Amino acid sequence: MSDRGHVPLGPGAEFDAIRELLEQWGPLSAGAGDDAALLTVPAGARLVASTDATVEDVHFRDGWITPTEIGYRAVTAALSDLAAMGAAPLGVLTAWVVPASWRSRVADIAHGVGEAVARAGTVVMGGNLSDGSKLAITSTVLGSVRTPLRRDGVRVGDALYVTGRLGGVGAALAAFLAGNTPGPEHRERFARPVARLSEGEWLATYGAHAAVDISDGLVADAAHLAAAGRVGIELDLGAIPLAPGVTARAALVSGEEYELLVAAPSALDGDAFQNAHQVPLTMVGRVVARHPGQVVVLEDGHHVAVGHGHDQFLA
Amino acid sequence: MSDRGHVPLGPGAEFDAIRELLEQWGPLSAGAGDDAALLTVPAGARLVASTDATVEDVHFRDGWITPTEIGYRAVTAALSDLAAMGAAPLGVLTAWVVPASWRSRVADIAHGVGEAVARAGTVVMGGNLSDGSKLAITSTVLGSVRTPLRRDGVRVGDALYVTGRLGGVGAALAAFLAGNTPGPEHRERFARPVARLSEGEWLATYGAHAAVDISDGLVADAAHLAAAGRVGIELDLGAIPLAPGVTARAALVSGEEYELLVAAPSALDGDAFQNAHQVPLTMVGRVVARHPGQVVVLEDGHHVAVGHGHDQFLA
Repeated sequence: MSDRGHVPLGPGAEFDAIRELLEQWGPLSAGAGDDAALLTVPAGARLVASTDATVEDVHFRDGWITPTEIGYRAVTAALSDLAAMGAAPLGVLTAWVVPASWRSRVADIAHGVGEAVARAGTVVMGGNLSDGSKLAITSTVLGSVRTPLRRDGVRVGDALYVTGRLGGVGAALAAFLAGNTPGPEHRERFARPVARLSEGEWLATYGAHAAVDISDGLVADAAHLAAAGRVGIELDLGAIPLAPGVTARAALVSGEEYELLVAAPSALDGDAFQNAHQVPLTMVGRVVARHPGQVVVLEDGHHVAVGHGHDQFLA
Repeated sequence: MSDRGHVPLGPGAEFDAIRELLEQWGPLSAGAGDDAALLTVPAGARLVASTDATVEDVHFRDGWITPTEIGYRAVTAALSDLAAMGAAPLGVLTAWVVPASWRSRVADIAHGVGEAVARAGTVVMGGNLSDGSKLAITSTVLGSVRTPLRRDGVRVGDALYVTGRLGGVGAALAAFLAGNTPGPEHRERFARPVARLSEGEWLATYGAHAAVDISDGLVADAAHLAAAGRVGIELDLGAIPLAPGVTARAALVSGEEYELLVAAPSALDGDAFQNAHQVPLTMVGRVVARHPGQVVVLEDGHHVAVGHGHDQFLA
């Protein structure tokens, strides 16, 4: 979506490194080499922008996943915010802090960034390289949308749906933190999340009212919806779609899932969604007028006490 | 420029911190609280986007400048890339890695970020907070432009101009690195740079062909222009406008100045520019067909050997 190709870069080690990355990305990058990237937002659409950071020893530890997976995951996490708005991606800006100990792995990280933008059908539009003490990847994603899925679009009477199956990421993280190797399905959910971009666009098109991506955990992200819409939310513990070998209670607080939590009229055609995307869409609760701003989890009609999800700033 | 106000945020320490920042910024922030910010690019204009990181112990050390100045400077450095495109700012996304030792200073950093966006006439549209081991502020700036000042717009026969006076930042940095206190004028140039936004828009409107902001040093940034346009550049050592107490040779390699280096027909009306902006615009050289891709510095008609400027990735 950039208006032009690359401009030759000047001398210097940072520029040599950037030049290598651009060569590696090839057609997956566009518009680099000027002070800023230029692009066109489609007529009639609004611009959507979000920024997200992945920091070594906060969001992952060296050795848990490969450098390629780190790059892939960092960009996918940011793209997930576009999915939650029902937006189509226009491009990604990727700013890296690279300690000396990581320099030999820069090409691998870039490979993962390339995989993430390719999977999303978008491009790297710009970036920044800095030295530093811990690897950090800050991804800024730009997209366009005509009918945004705003959090405060949630309405009393809406049904709540989630895409995919929850809990695998939390199970992988628990295994990593305990020094164990996660099972391959759990590891894959941690290392290779999918930004539900086409799903978010479909949901915005077919009448969803609001969405949030599950980055803090189902309960915590439902609380964001409840707060934004000043509505109550009830989740049915037994309805939550689970990754293999995960309990529903664990799934409630599993963060960084990057699945979508969607508020929509209960007439939403889940079968059509599943046929279009090969991803399950499961009704997990409802939006109510009572207890505005609060999330309640129910099991057989009784309240279940649950903690909140992942709180990254405490990590 | 955001399409709406804030959406209430959910619970959690990160959100408490963000809520405090939004309260502090007040009308200087817009559109936060959803998965992504929404905004409208003016009809007929293109979107401009750039990202830039400021990292503790790479770009500054704790104690050199105040937390407010760190926040101000981080955002201003990124806004300078919009200035170099001749773009008007639409908004800023600010992603922070905040170690425990910096948490008590978050409000001061935010104050500086607020000062920078206020001075630029723009807003904070979104952000991210992460834990980490060193303070890092990654600023992504969005703007709009109708006639971009692209680096590859440089033409043989153009005159080269710089805004402001160079060398103060390098002098401040040298003093800091030697454990000394910079003189107040040099310190101010380091701590309180100005993004030449209105100047960049003026230059784009009144016929400049290309621009780059001086972030790596005059010679290094001139080399970016030379590479982009596949042209030669000659700089006249004696013409370089100098900060007080700085030599021309030091000014050649002083980075993070955030002044503009501009290629324009020599008919550009420097007096009108200075009257409009109260900032000097000085002719410092010319664009030539010989030695394409190279920058030559001349003193009394003789070549002067100079090193390249600041190379951040080696810092």
